[in-house]
Amino acid sequence: MKVSRRDLLAGAAGVVALGASAAAQAPSDTTKTRGKPSRALGQRSGAEKPQRQPRGATSSGTPHQDLYGTITPSDLHFERHHGGVPEIDPNSYSLLIHGMVERPMMFSLADLKRFPAVSRIHFLECSGNFGGRTANVELTPQQIAGLTSTSEWTGVRLATLFKEVGASPKATWFLAEGQDAAVLTRSVPIAKAYDDALIAYGQNGEAIRPEQGYPARLFLPGWEGNANVKWLRRIELSDRPFMTREETSKYTDPMADGTARMFSFLMDARSLITYPAYPVTLTPGWVEINGIAWTGSGKIVRVDVSTDGGKTWTAAKLQEPVLSKAHTRFRHLWNWKGSEAVIKSRAVDETGYVQPTKDAVIALRGISSVGYHTNPITGWRIRSDGTVVYAAEPWS
Amino acid sequence: MKVSRRDLLAGAAGVVALGASAAAQAPSDTTKTRGKPSRALGQRSGAEKPQRQPRGATSSGTPHQDLYGTITPSDLHFERHHGGVPEIDPNSYSLLIHGMVERPMMFSLADLKRFPAVSRIHFLECSGNFGGRTANVELTPQQIAGLTSTSEWTGVRLATLFKEVGASPKATWFLAEGQDAAVLTRSVPIAKAYDDALIAYGQNGEAIRPEQGYPARLFLPGWEGNANVKWLRRIELSDRPFMTREETSKYTDPMADGTARMFSFLMDARSLITYPAYPVTLTPGWVEINGIAWTGSGKIVRVDVSTDGGKTWTAAKLQEPVLSKAHTRFRHLWNWKGSEAVIKSRAVDETGYVQPTKDAVIALRGISSVGYHTNPITGWRIRSDGTVVYAAEPWS
Repeated sequence: MKVSRRDLLAGAAGVVALGASAAAQAPSDTTKTRGKPSRALGQRSGAEKPQRQPRGATSSGTPHQDLYGTITPSDLHFERHHGGVPEIDPNSYSLLIHGMVERPMMFSLADLKRFPAVSRIHFLECSGNFGGRTANVELTPQQIAGLTSTSEWTGVRLATLFKEVGASPKATWFLAEGQDAAVLTRSVPIAKAYDDALIAYGQNGEAIRPEQGYPARLFLPGWEGNANVKWLRRIELSDRPFMTREETSKYTDPMADGTARMFSFLMDARSLITYPAYPVTLTPGWVEINGIAWTGSGKIVRVDVSTDGGKTWTAAKLQEPVLSKAHTRFRHLWNWKGSEAVIKSRAVDETGYVQPTKDAVIALRGISSVGYHTNPITGWRIRSDGTVVYAAEPWS
Repeated sequence: MKVSRRDLLAGAAGVVALGASAAAQAPSDTTKTRGKPSRALGQRSGAEKPQRQPRGATSSGTPHQDLYGTITPSDLHFERHHGGVPEIDPNSYSLLIHGMVERPMMFSLADLKRFPAVSRIHFLECSGNFGGRTANVELTPQQIAGLTSTSEWTGVRLATLFKEVGASPKATWFLAEGQDAAVLTRSVPIAKAYDDALIAYGQNGEAIRPEQGYPARLFLPGWEGNANVKWLRRIELSDRPFMTREETSKYTDPMADGTARMFSFLMDARSLITYPAYPVTLTPGWVEINGIAWTGSGKIVRVDVSTDGGKTWTAAKLQEPVLSKAHTRFRHLWNWKGSEAVIKSRAVDETGYVQPTKDAVIALRGISSVGYHTNPITGWRIRSDGTVVYAAEPWS
């Protein structure tokens, strides 16, 4: 899209031509007083207060409306737990790997750190990450999809540990068990261990945070958050799934044909416009629509944006480098002329999967599709006064 | 390098074969008590206390010995300032661009955010980032090279703003002026503005931190930290450099031939082994040597590691994706058999530049080369008792 300089000038409210002398008119002259000395830990500016938004005692979402780029600051990474966040002494932490192995072994945290490590930037998402029940209401990006975040994760490949213990070639599943009060347990196909699963102990350059599983967790790139067992204390290899509560009573998906889908690990492609979004009030002119898109299947290859309620779509610019199974920032320049408009985004991933409409989700999944793995196209309604509310099917 | 399973087993101290029942023997049973509820901001585990290390009131370094991967947590990003850290009200912040332009303009923070944005992962390094004066002493990676960090920076390209104000094609330099008590000013060749310079307002997903220039700073990828003027309030375009104090009295490099080098913006390739390093005590067996390498010239293409004091070198594994002008994690598996050894690393970048020896630095720069832009090969001496001290020329 071609944008003339004059267009941008007109759109950027508050930009005015001034002489050089205006630079000295700051209300509090920070050039006259020595600032704060260096310190051991930095803090945010007092003017910036991004916060997670707890929903009850067991989860809190990332404030996507306040964020830029792709990395989620660790203290704003979403949390979801079933028994609260345990405080685990890293010196007494251990991970047992047993079952269908030649040598059952217990690893201390120091043991895990001694193995060859890898670092990878990946998103994590709760499979229940859909807060967009009703359209035309004042919901933030954080409320719509706060239960996804992206970090640089560091750890040892689970394949390395499975080689160490002599995993049986006959093992087809493994159980992962947490050390929290819920003793959360999930069964995972063993192929994931040999693909890209990690035992992660690092997050965004430092030790993993308590809410994310300190001192070590299972990390299954692209798979639903619940299966990425935190505070991991035990892995048991088997030739069948363990049919735990969290994969029978919970974390199954009722389908339109009356059956229930189990072990739906993969998080499908989704996108979220984070600006403009509630609670922003927009002024007419050029605005860069932007947001995040992600898919558990690999890389995002395209994000389509519509500014006319879905009649026409344009491919947005993707921030490079596009990383596999990571939030990808998309941007699309739009000249908002002041009349009501609905903007939407639609993610496409490298498998060709296209983020579905809500109608398509319901056709597949039935009316219970407001539960897990709900990823319909959503958007924002820009009213003529510039206020913004959540928009979704039915669009009007 | 081939490593047998048995070798790893022998090397991983503390790994022992145990029955399944041992899993229940944790000293404090976190499975019996509900953990902490969700909260608005996460905090580190009480067992993890990474900290910057202030050197006087004007700088503090990143604790590389405590970190993994490539991203530096924002509260551990190094700081360096000449007049303390100012507290700037984002609502009264403005950036004036004037001088050789068609339309001098003043931009509020909201104006800057309205322009098309980019996000990029880059390192930043103080040109005085060399704390390795004397070898065989107890210095940490933080003390040797703490004044470099990597973040995901978000902002508007300076080229976009220069188009907006109608920069004269005759302008060849611009002045950047900070709003701190030092009113730090530097001259920058205008070509950098059209290459990859940013006015950055985002860092690691959120608003830039006060020590890094809140609410907006100049960001010159790969160029010495000092020129990346923080708390930026004014840019003036000109047809010559401004010859400020910080580029005449300071930030010039005495050379071996008696002249002084000015405007030495580029940060050349360097590497730093962060593990094993002081204060670690190593036990014999397999250990993954790892660290970070970076270059202002683009991408790191190779990091050589020596475990025999420099007699032989082996190319380390580079963590993918290798990003331009960003810390790159390298890893090299080594079987330490318990006798004294000196380990070193040597970075090579995409221009073919090879990190020099200290002798080579002195040949070029003379005896004053312990000042700015000092990037000699360094390493660590592993003593036979497993203690580790800083190692550098002369190596013995």
